[in-house]
Amino acid sequence: MSQPDELAIVEKLRRLSESAPQHRALKLGIGDDCAIYQPQPGEDLLFTTDQMIEDVHFRRWQSAPSLGHRALARSLSDIAAMGGEPRFCLVALAAPAELGGKWIMAFYRGLIALAKKSGTDLAGGDLAHDSKIRCDVMVCGAAPRGTALRRDGAHAGDAIFVSGKLGKPWDRKIEPRLHLGQQLRGRATSCIDLSDGLSLDLHRVCLASGTAAEIGNIPVFRGATLERALHGGEDYELLFTLPPGSSAPAGTTRIGTMVRGRPGAVELDGKLLPPRGYDHFGARFSKRTLRRAPLQ
Amino acid sequence: MSQPDELAIVEKLRRLSESAPQHRALKLGIGDDCAIYQPQPGEDLLFTTDQMIEDVHFRRWQSAPSLGHRALARSLSDIAAMGGEPRFCLVALAAPAELGGKWIMAFYRGLIALAKKSGTDLAGGDLAHDSKIRCDVMVCGAAPRGTALRRDGAHAGDAIFVSGKLGKPWDRKIEPRLHLGQQLRGRATSCIDLSDGLSLDLHRVCLASGTAAEIGNIPVFRGATLERALHGGEDYELLFTLPPGSSAPAGTTRIGTMVRGRPGAVELDGKLLPPRGYDHFGARFSKRTLRRAPLQ
Repeated sequence: MSQPDELAIVEKLRRLSESAPQHRALKLGIGDDCAIYQPQPGEDLLFTTDQMIEDVHFRRWQSAPSLGHRALARSLSDIAAMGGEPRFCLVALAAPAELGGKWIMAFYRGLIALAKKSGTDLAGGDLAHDSKIRCDVMVCGAAPRGTALRRDGAHAGDAIFVSGKLGKPWDRKIEPRLHLGQQLRGRATSCIDLSDGLSLDLHRVCLASGTAAEIGNIPVFRGATLERALHGGEDYELLFTLPPGSSAPAGTTRIGTMVRGRPGAVELDGKLLPPRGYDHFGARFSKRTLRRAPLQ
Repeated sequence: MSQPDELAIVEKLRRLSESAPQHRALKLGIGDDCAIYQPQPGEDLLFTTDQMIEDVHFRRWQSAPSLGHRALARSLSDIAAMGGEPRFCLVALAAPAELGGKWIMAFYRGLIALAKKSGTDLAGGDLAHDSKIRCDVMVCGAAPRGTALRRDGAHAGDAIFVSGKLGKPWDRKIEPRLHLGQQLRGRATSCIDLSDGLSLDLHRVCLASGTAAEIGNIPVFRGATLERALHGGEDYELLFTLPPGSSAPAGTTRIGTMVRGRPGAVELDGKLLPPRGYDHFGARFSKRTLRRAPLQ
C-alpha cells in the first residue's frame, strides 16, 4: 500500500484505539515495536489466536464491518470459554489493494465496535496487501489466579449444559458469551466454546476429562435441522458441566450427563454419536489435541 | 485438512512443544481454548505480531525450516528492540493442502529450533488450508517493570549506534539481537529494530523523540551498496541511542548524533536523507505511527 495511504490508516486506527482506552494496565498501544502490558496482581492471563480466510471461512460479499466483528468475536469466544475478561487484541490483516483504505477502515469499525462493547483494547497489529482477505486476531484476557475454566475437569455424574440454540446459520452475528463464562468461574467443572459442532466439541471435553456422555433434548435453532445442531460448526455457544444437582443458569439448557465409560464416547438418545463436526474450518491446534496438554 | 492428518500434526506439535518447556509461568499450552500464563511479580509483558505471506515476503522455493525460523525471528526482533526476554509464541499458519503434513512439520521444526534457542515456548495457534502459505506469529516477551526500551526517549546530543552490518540480502537468516537488547535496558534512551530500512526507521525514532539526526560512517554489508544499506529492509539489526560520551557496545558501530532540528529530519554527510525505506512489506501499524502512541 502506498505510504501516505498507509500512514493515514495507521493514524486513524491509533486515534480510534485511543478514543476509549479501557484498561490502565495497557501502558503502550499502537506506535512502537511492541505493546506493553503491566499485569495486575493476582491475575492469570489467557491467550488465543484465530485466523479467518476468504473463501475458507467467509466470502468477500459479506460486509466489511460484519467481517471485522466476526474476526474479533471468534477469538473472544475462546476467552469466554475460559471464563476470562478481555483485555486487549492484536490484529494482523491482509487485504487486496483494490479494496482500498475505505474497506480497511470499515473492517476496523466493525471490529472496534465489538472491542469497545466487550472491553477489549486494540493494542497493535500488522497490515499488508495480499490477493485475498485474511485476518488473524490474538486476544489477551484475564481471570483471577487459578479460576480459568478448562475442559479437563468434568466428572461422571456432572450435568451437561449448552447456552442458546444450536445449528445457527454460519453467517449469523456472533455474540461471544463472555458474561456467562465469567459467571461460571468457580462453578463449572469444564467449559468449551462450540466452534466445530456439538458432537466434536463434547467429544473433546470427554477425552480431556476422561469421561463419556449421554445427551438428548438438544435446543435446535428455529429452522435448523437436528443434524446441523449436532454437527454444524460456528455456533459459538458455551458447552459446560456443573456438579450433580446444579440448576441451569439463565439462557442455558441441560442436555445430559457425564458418565463412566470409554473416554470420548458420546451417546445421543441411547445411540453412539460420532464426533463428526465441521472440518472445513481447518485445525485449531489449541483445540484438537486429544488430551489435556499443559506444558509442564 | 483431513482430521486424522490434522490430529497427528497437532499431537506431534504438542509433543514437540512439551519436550522442552522453558517457562514455569506458562501454566497451560496447546490443548485448550486458550493458553494460560501466570505473570511473575515485577514484570511488564511485551506483545508483537508479524505476518509473513507467500509472494509478498517470500517465495515457496525457500525451505520450510528456513521459513519457520524466519517467521519467528521477525517477531523476536521486535522483542529484542524493546529489551525483552521471550516468553512464548502463538502461531497461525495456513498452507496449501498439496504441501502436506510433512511440509508443515518441517516448517515447525525450523520455528521450534529457534524457539528453543531463544527461550520461547510454543503455547498454541491455529492451522488452516489456503491456496498460499501464510503465517502470523505473536510473541510475548517480558522485561522488569518500567525498563522496556522505547523509541521516544532520545535527546539532542545522544549518540546513535547500529548493530552488525546493513544491507544484507533479504533471504539471509535472521539472528534476533535479543542479548544486545537486554544489555541496553537502563542504558539506551531509544531503540528500534531495522525492519524497513535505516532511513525510514531512524526517521521514526526522530519523530517519536522530537529530534533530528546527523549520520555517516554506515557499516555496509560486504557486497551490498550504500543505497541498500540506507533504504533496504529486513536487516533486523538494532538502531539505538546512548547518552553523550557512551562507548559503542561490542558488535555495534556509532553512526551519528541526535541533534536539535525539525523532528524526523535525517542528514547523511550533510545532505538530507529522505525516509524511503522498503515498502513492499506492507504497513506494520505498530510501527508506522508518526508519534508515540500510548493508549493512556
